[in-house]
Amino acid sequence: MATDALKTWVGFDLGGTKMLAHIYDEQFRPIGRERRKTRSNDAFEDGIDRVVETIQMALQHGGVSAKSIQAIGIGCPGPIDFDTGTLVSPPNLAWKSFNVRERLQEVFGCPVIVSNDVDAGVYGEYCFGAARNSRCAIGVFPGTGIGGGCVYRGEIFAGAGRSCLEIGHVQVMPNGPQCGCGQRGCLEAVASRLAISAQLAKAAFRGEAPTILKLAGTDVAEMRSKIIAEAIDNGEAVVESIVREAARWIGIAIAGVINLMAPDTVILGGGLVEAMPKLFVNQVTKSAKKRVMPAYVDTFQVVAAELGDDAVTLGSAAWARHATEGTEPRALRREAVAAVN
Amino acid sequence: MATDALKTWVGFDLGGTKMLAHIYDEQFRPIGRERRKTRSNDAFEDGIDRVVETIQMALQHGGVSAKSIQAIGIGCPGPIDFDTGTLVSPPNLAWKSFNVRERLQEVFGCPVIVSNDVDAGVYGEYCFGAARNSRCAIGVFPGTGIGGGCVYRGEIFAGAGRSCLEIGHVQVMPNGPQCGCGQRGCLEAVASRLAISAQLAKAAFRGEAPTILKLAGTDVAEMRSKIIAEAIDNGEAVVESIVREAARWIGIAIAGVINLMAPDTVILGGGLVEAMPKLFVNQVTKSAKKRVMPAYVDTFQVVAAELGDDAVTLGSAAWARHATEGTEPRALRREAVAAVN
Repeated sequence: MATDALKTWVGFDLGGTKMLAHIYDEQFRPIGRERRKTRSNDAFEDGIDRVVETIQMALQHGGVSAKSIQAIGIGCPGPIDFDTGTLVSPPNLAWKSFNVRERLQEVFGCPVIVSNDVDAGVYGEYCFGAARNSRCAIGVFPGTGIGGGCVYRGEIFAGAGRSCLEIGHVQVMPNGPQCGCGQRGCLEAVASRLAISAQLAKAAFRGEAPTILKLAGTDVAEMRSKIIAEAIDNGEAVVESIVREAARWIGIAIAGVINLMAPDTVILGGGLVEAMPKLFVNQVTKSAKKRVMPAYVDTFQVVAAELGDDAVTLGSAAWARHATEGTEPRALRREAVAAVN
Repeated sequence: MATDALKTWVGFDLGGTKMLAHIYDEQFRPIGRERRKTRSNDAFEDGIDRVVETIQMALQHGGVSAKSIQAIGIGCPGPIDFDTGTLVSPPNLAWKSFNVRERLQEVFGCPVIVSNDVDAGVYGEYCFGAARNSRCAIGVFPGTGIGGGCVYRGEIFAGAGRSCLEIGHVQVMPNGPQCGCGQRGCLEAVASRLAISAQLAKAAFRGEAPTILKLAGTDVAEMRSKIIAEAIDNGEAVVESIVREAARWIGIAIAGVINLMAPDTVILGGGLVEAMPKLFVNQVTKSAKKRVMPAYVDTFQVVAAELGDDAVTLGSAAWARHATEGTEPRALRREAVAAVN
């Protein structure tokens, strides 16, 4: 294994709480990985050092040297300026407007392609997962916030040179609840995991959600996806109703995106969806179909993501390869799919 | 002029009330034109005959024969299925799901490219007008309805193979006024010319808008853009407030589009905007900037369309040329701009 003739691509998922490095071979088979906490309050200098170390550990686990790396793809939170590879005020990281690309290029001496983590995840699903053969795929990932991404005709959709698809900040309820972005009534403020958790905490406190109360108490930080799914399995109607209402709002926002961008595939992902894929897919489909223009009712399908935590690392690595080699996305996809199956 | 060595492209604007054919030479200079009423209640057979005759008249005016035509571009209302060249239930025409492309190809023996009229208008502005050099241009045209279109990286954005950017049907006011599409609170229902006219008719009836009352009475069908602009020039505050409120709502919907698609240029067009460009550009800019995510505040500009009635004919002809010759849009654009200036 430890031969430098091997070509590798690094996929990196830089999250607010964890960072994850995967080393892939030419067929996009994972050959080494490392996971660490992000320490999101670290200064940029310390944070970027952790990124470097995490890649070095993953290389070591894979038994390959840094020389094998053809390109590094790194998926990061928040808006990205694609021209410079700079993060533009990521909401969940203390590192403001820093240049990830420059530093990693210096250390590893290879091309570094910075992408938005949700875009990377959707690109991963486009290459290897739930959005294969899509002409226009939209991904929506309800979590602490609600992220969105788009792959259009084999490319990450980037508008005016920066990542977009900020579906979490589409206003669905004028004068609705306050959102972290400063506006009111954003989708995120009514349907994120945090919004759901706050409702669940109230229900638990009122004694309407015994499973939640038993396993998570009334603390919004403790409302894990699996606990919520368990409460619904136990027949706690209030819990199901809270989650369905959130999914209904997500469907409303998605209907707006469909009227604007006419995707053929809408991917739902993240921990909540993974724990309750049927509930989310059905409720979002129903809510969106009810609201799109008649011409679009039969033009899209809503599906659950397939790659879980691997979507961002796979997608950022595949995107880095596409961006540096100009590989036709379709060819890359076929090769990669063949390798995965 | 009457030489068959001349190559021409036909641009056709098929509207709900008028149809317009322009014949262009290789530098996209207009060499013949014809304008007729659409008679939107005609059956498809009669309607398509009028389209054919209108093109034949324009050719005659230009002194060129049908043999000179390299391609016909036709901009049509409503969603278009680009794969088949079929109109999908156009709301303002009696011709449902008919195949425009097939018939015109039979008659003229040349390629026919069907596009959505707003897309064609935005493509026209991208090639020759207010959106030159844009990476991602969104066009919003408040009229009887509110149309939208997008040119992304030199191509009409088409999602899952059909026209989209239906910004008129993005919901801005849950449980708001009834929209023609069957939903409630769509942008069109609160900010179209019809929505504005209904408000103006009430104001005129109440005696708050003397210019409107004098020139248009209280009939919503009589509220022409120039009359509205004149009332505002005459200092009728209620009229200005009604128009500004509509522009504010348009800005709200555009903010959502910016958060999703990050356009660098937002073009406003149509009769209302032409009559009051400053009011619309300023109010929409203000309203959108207030609501977009911080990362996008300085990434876009709102501009008034420059080509007026020629946008759709120019754009549909240029798009037909691009689609049939695979002309690099940028090259075509430069050539065309040089010809126009």
